[in-house]
Amino acid sequence: MKQPSLHKIAVIGGGSWATALVKILSEQTGNQVRWWLRSQADIDHIRAYHHNPRYLSDVFHSPKKVKVCGKIKDAIRDANYIVLAVPAAYIEEPLQKLKPADFSGKRIVSAIKGMIPEVNLLVTDWMEERFEVPLGDICVIAGPCHAEEVALEKQSYLTIASTNPECAADFAKIITCRYVTAHPLADLYGVEYAAVMKNIVALACGITYGLGYGDNFQAVMVSNAMQEIRRFVTALDPREREMSASAYLGDLLVTAYSQFSRNRLFGNMIGRGYSVKAAQVEMKMVAEGYFATKSIHAINQQLGVSMPITDAVYRILYEGIAPGLVMNELKAQLR
Amino acid sequence: MKQPSLHKIAVIGGGSWATALVKILSEQTGNQVRWWLRSQADIDHIRAYHHNPRYLSDVFHSPKKVKVCGKIKDAIRDANYIVLAVPAAYIEEPLQKLKPADFSGKRIVSAIKGMIPEVNLLVTDWMEERFEVPLGDICVIAGPCHAEEVALEKQSYLTIASTNPECAADFAKIITCRYVTAHPLADLYGVEYAAVMKNIVALACGITYGLGYGDNFQAVMVSNAMQEIRRFVTALDPREREMSASAYLGDLLVTAYSQFSRNRLFGNMIGRGYSVKAAQVEMKMVAEGYFATKSIHAINQQLGVSMPITDAVYRILYEGIAPGLVMNELKAQLR
Repeated sequence: MKQPSLHKIAVIGGGSWATALVKILSEQTGNQVRWWLRSQADIDHIRAYHHNPRYLSDVFHSPKKVKVCGKIKDAIRDANYIVLAVPAAYIEEPLQKLKPADFSGKRIVSAIKGMIPEVNLLVTDWMEERFEVPLGDICVIAGPCHAEEVALEKQSYLTIASTNPECAADFAKIITCRYVTAHPLADLYGVEYAAVMKNIVALACGITYGLGYGDNFQAVMVSNAMQEIRRFVTALDPREREMSASAYLGDLLVTAYSQFSRNRLFGNMIGRGYSVKAAQVEMKMVAEGYFATKSIHAINQQLGVSMPITDAVYRILYEGIAPGLVMNELKAQLR
Repeated sequence: MKQPSLHKIAVIGGGSWATALVKILSEQTGNQVRWWLRSQADIDHIRAYHHNPRYLSDVFHSPKKVKVCGKIKDAIRDANYIVLAVPAAYIEEPLQKLKPADFSGKRIVSAIKGMIPEVNLLVTDWMEERFEVPLGDICVIAGPCHAEEVALEKQSYLTIASTNPECAADFAKIITCRYVTAHPLADLYGVEYAAVMKNIVALACGITYGLGYGDNFQAVMVSNAMQEIRRFVTALDPREREMSASAYLGDLLVTAYSQFSRNRLFGNMIGRGYSVKAAQVEMKMVAEGYFATKSIHAINQQLGVSMPITDAVYRILYEGIAPGLVMNELKAQLR
C-alpha cells in the first residue's frame, strides 16, 4: 500500500472559511497544517483550548495536526502550499513584509472570493504581480460550500481551478476528505470571476427582498445573473464553459439562497432603507460584494458587456440612487 | 388609441395555480374568464362570495370578469383560449366527454407541469393526438411562479413557449399584467420537459434533506440536475438553448428551493423513512414528480441519456431501494 506523502500547508486567516479549511485540511493523515491568525488572543485561546473562540467554535483542532502561528513567516517557512483565506480587502497588510523569495517554490491556493480593491486585480493576478509567483503554481478553491456545514461534516463539494491541470489535480487530492469531494477544473479566471460576482448577485437579492420582492423575482434574478456572469467571463477569457457546473451555478446558489450570507444581509439592509455607511456600521464589517461591485463595474468600463444587475447594484451603492427606483428599472430588463 | 380586443379565456381546474391564473388573466380589461372547477360546493361558494374556499382564499374574483361554470362545455364554448390547469394525472377525466370539434379553432394553453401517466405523453402531445389540436395552436406556460406570490401581487415572470412564435407572442400579451411579465420562447419541448423534470429534482432535494444532507449538497444537486435536464432535452430535441433562462433554471430554482413545494415535501417524507404509500396517504395527494419520475425514466430507456438523479429517484420510489443507500451512490456521481 502506498504511503501518503506529507503535505505541509499554511492557512492564512482566522475567519469562518479559514477555520473550515483548517478542519478539512487536517483530516488527511499526510497533511500538516500551520495556521496563522492575526489576533494574539485567538491564538492563545486555540493553543489552550483547541477551538477558535470566534468562528465555528465547536470545531476541535487537534494540536498534533494543527500548529497555530503568531508570525506569518513561521507559518509559511516550510510549507508546500499556502492557502490565503482573508477577505481581499485585508490581504495586503499581513503579507506586506514578505518578499518574492518567501513564496519561491511554493504553491499558492486562493480561497478568497474578492478582488484587491484599489487595483481591481484578482487575488491570483495580484500574487503573480506582487510576489512573482508563476501562474502555474496558483490555484483557487471554489464552493458551493458554507463553512457552517463543513463544521457539521455535511457532504460538500469543492472545485480547484488552475491554469495548470497538475496543480489543480494535486490540491484537489490533498483537500478531499470523508465529507468533502474536490474536483479539478482548468478555468482559473472563469471560476475566480464567477466567485467574485456571486457576491454582487447575493447583494442584489438582498436588496430586492428588503424592498419586498419575493422568491419568484429572485429565481429570475439568479437566472439573469448566470447569463450576466457568462457574458462577462466570456468577454475576458472566451472559451466553452458548462455554466451549470457546481463551481459557477452551485457557488452562486449557496450564496444567493443563504440566509447567512453577509452580502445578502448587507443588501437587505440597503433595500430596507439603511444608508451604505449605516449598514456597514450596523454589520460591524464590510461585505465582499461591496468592493466587488466597484471592481467589476470598473473593469466593465473597458469591456462594455451588458450587466444590468451589476450596474443596478453599483448605482445604489456608489451613486446613491434610491434602491426602489433602480430595481424598478431593472425589473423591466429581466426576463 | 387602439382598443384592446376581447379575449375569451376558459380556465380548467380549481387548484392554487388555476386560481392564480384566473386572477392574472382577469386583470386585463379585454379579457373575459370562464372558470371550470370540479367541485359544485366550491362553485357555489365562489358564486356567493367571490373567493375560492380552498386555494388562495384571500383572492377576490370579480363576478364581472370571471364566470364560474359547472359544465366544462359551457366554459369552453365561446373561448378563444383554453387554459388547462389540472394535474396531468387527472386531466383525462374532465375532458373525456369532449370531442375534437369542441376544440376546433381554439388555442390550447397548458399550465400543466406533468405527463399523462399511462402513455408517457406531454400534455401538449396528448392534446394533439387525442383532440387533433394543431401543434401550432398550442402553447405552455412556464414559471418561475409560485401561485402564493401571485396572490400577493409580487412581481413575477412567465415564459410562454410554442412551436408557433405568433401563438406564444399573442398569449404572452394576454397574460401580462401589472405584476406579471410574460415573454414568448420558441422551444415548446425544452420548456415543457424541463418543467416536468424540475419536479423530480425537487423530490430528490426533499429526499436528501430528509436524510440529513444540507445546502451545500443541494447546490451541487441542482447544478448537476441542470446538466441532466440539458442532456435529456438535447437528446429529444437538439438545439442551442440558454439553459440559464428563467423558463429552465428559474423554474427549477423556485421549486427546488421552496419550502412549500409538494414534491419537495413528498421527497422529504421519503428521506425520513416514510414508505411511498404512507407519504401519499399523509399528504392526501400525489406529488407530480412521482409520476414524472416513472414517465421520464421510461422515455430514457430508449434514449440512454446519463441521468443519475432521475435514476436515483426511480430506484427509491419504484424499486423500493433504501434512500440512504441510493443517495450514497449518487453522492459519488455528482461533482
